[in-house]
Amino acid sequence: MPYFDHNATTPLAPIAREAWLQAADESWQNPASLYRDAARAKIRLDAARARLAEFLGGGEEFVVFNSGATEGTNAVLAHWSRGFPAGAQVAVNPTEHPCVLESAKYYFGERIFWLPVSREGVVELAAVKLLLESKVVAGVIVMAANNETGVLQPWPEIARCCAAAGVEYLCDASQWMGKLPAAGLGAAGWVIGSAHKFGGPKGAGFLQLPRGAESFCAQRGGAQQSGHRGGTEDLAGASALVAALAEAEQKKVFQEDERLRWRVDFEQAVKRAVPGVAVVAAGAERLWNTVSLLMPHTENTRWVTRLDKVGFQVSTGSACAAGKAVPSQVLAAMGYSREAAGRVIRVSAGWATTMADWNALAVALAGLESEFRVDSGNVLKI
Amino acid sequence: MPYFDHNATTPLAPIAREAWLQAADESWQNPASLYRDAARAKIRLDAARARLAEFLGGGEEFVVFNSGATEGTNAVLAHWSRGFPAGAQVAVNPTEHPCVLESAKYYFGERIFWLPVSREGVVELAAVKLLLESKVVAGVIVMAANNETGVLQPWPEIARCCAAAGVEYLCDASQWMGKLPAAGLGAAGWVIGSAHKFGGPKGAGFLQLPRGAESFCAQRGGAQQSGHRGGTEDLAGASALVAALAEAEQKKVFQEDERLRWRVDFEQAVKRAVPGVAVVAAGAERLWNTVSLLMPHTENTRWVTRLDKVGFQVSTGSACAAGKAVPSQVLAAMGYSREAAGRVIRVSAGWATTMADWNALAVALAGLESEFRVDSGNVLKI
Repeated sequence: MPYFDHNATTPLAPIAREAWLQAADESWQNPASLYRDAARAKIRLDAARARLAEFLGGGEEFVVFNSGATEGTNAVLAHWSRGFPAGAQVAVNPTEHPCVLESAKYYFGERIFWLPVSREGVVELAAVKLLLESKVVAGVIVMAANNETGVLQPWPEIARCCAAAGVEYLCDASQWMGKLPAAGLGAAGWVIGSAHKFGGPKGAGFLQLPRGAESFCAQRGGAQQSGHRGGTEDLAGASALVAALAEAEQKKVFQEDERLRWRVDFEQAVKRAVPGVAVVAAGAERLWNTVSLLMPHTENTRWVTRLDKVGFQVSTGSACAAGKAVPSQVLAAMGYSREAAGRVIRVSAGWATTMADWNALAVALAGLESEFRVDSGNVLKI
Repeated sequence: MPYFDHNATTPLAPIAREAWLQAADESWQNPASLYRDAARAKIRLDAARARLAEFLGGGEEFVVFNSGATEGTNAVLAHWSRGFPAGAQVAVNPTEHPCVLESAKYYFGERIFWLPVSREGVVELAAVKLLLESKVVAGVIVMAANNETGVLQPWPEIARCCAAAGVEYLCDASQWMGKLPAAGLGAAGWVIGSAHKFGGPKGAGFLQLPRGAESFCAQRGGAQQSGHRGGTEDLAGASALVAALAEAEQKKVFQEDERLRWRVDFEQAVKRAVPGVAVVAAGAERLWNTVSLLMPHTENTRWVTRLDKVGFQVSTGSACAAGKAVPSQVLAAMGYSREAAGRVIRVSAGWATTMADWNALAVALAGLESEFRVDSGNVLKI
């Protein structure tokens, strides 16, 4: 069954499975204990941390292993809210993942400056620069790649501007990691990611701390992870995260060009076969794996259900929001009406997805479209 | 190599390993997604949650799967600090785990009432009752079983008193779960635990919410876990946690009596063989697996290192603190001097520990003791 929902989660990569089992079987001791087997677990943990830092391009203070991007975001926003000067604002890209939007609203409330984005959801770099000059914000949050549309943000430039202005920068790299080279993220300040988005296990993630974040503490308890996160370290999860990333970094991210062609071919095939369909953020630079399709008619939950029955697993948008009747905040920020957002389906491929899978999905979409059109008597509307 | 540090962490139980792999291989989909395979993952997650609630004895509002007890404690203390009336105090047992002590200090600072404990580290129930009558505290924190000494606290009575007084109660059941029956904890209000303390994987734990905790949110993000914790659920971790607990609940906790005899026999053997040794909290009701030994001489790190070389893995105390030069807060609260605390070693057995292992450890301790005595020319002191 072709799985086209890799942005929601990925199957566990064999190499990550193996790394998890090796750590769980051989080095299950508490890395904080004093005997030699425990010291070996500590050495493995430190090695995993160093390897992850290397993929990110190094240069930053410390990489904390945690339970995932949602934990990471919450912890960074909580830290900022305590450390920023009273009244300081944060600038937030409105197309962020719910964990960023909800944390930001919770910890900063009215003190959020919503960054302007283009119709395609790309943050306006000029606006960020102007804002940094005005010195009203103490932190900026812009993701690397969007989970719903695949749109790439100009994060390297934003990171540089923030660093130059002495403003904190948080980059959610959850959808970027494992799909595009991680190198460069090491210079992006606060960076978060989740292993299960790139072949690692669920419940494992990381948070890169920038220099100067010595006082950061995600969880109070023992002095684990240099005091940045109490709690017995999950060596198996961390090892599996790094193994999955290493495979992507060393073997897969170079295949991006070919995959990008498949995605473009798919978009063209769908446009030919489905009258009135539109690709969301069509003109923007996007991930090779993600297509957000605005269907000409029929609500997206019905598309998802029927595609499932004919063998394709896709999504209505962020999996976090998929079960709820609330419209996509990403699409709303891009100016789509609630009605239009209700017709958007997200297709997200993985490294195992073949060109034949993409073609088969295009055919299935075309077949269902004519069926739905006859069914509902809907007229085309975009 | 006989492993006597189960209170630090346990090896992954085969049944938990199997449950983890089954979930990771078969139900890796995002439980929030809309297609049928994802719905199956959601059903499995709900079943794991229901099973855990059943072991706890039910009756409470909701069980949240999280990354472990340290996350749980931090989240509950943060929630209390926001929700309690201004100036309200929390009453805290001073022999709690560092994650409780540090969270409580962080969120309540000077507003902590330290509960009086006996020389054996048992919370004075009468003091709790008096305190509840005085109505100055809004929350009480007393663990189920101590991680360093194995001392059991009168948590069922404390839970009843708190419920009757309408005061919140947090019970850290990390060391109780899997060693003694969990039944009854369902009525203990806020309850936390970590899978890796009872044969489950690291990075997986739970937090039971009491009734009336609808507004509790550990991490903001998607509406996962009924809105109580954002972030893609770790079904594999949750399944492994429940599998390990189920095995203990259904097969092992009934073996407590025999194991308790082994522990008592071990204590007597050590007392016969090592002149001047003392068992910490000897007169208190304690876990069948834990012995805290105050050695007559030689610092505990040396004991741990030498025992490791002759094949026994033990601890100086809480693994979280083992790597640091700070004295045990547990022993300090019980009135032990810093010097005495520096001579304490913790021995904690597991279900696979045999009577022969206990006997061999007693012999090893006796052998090392005479060696150390000759070495250092230390005189006996307690």
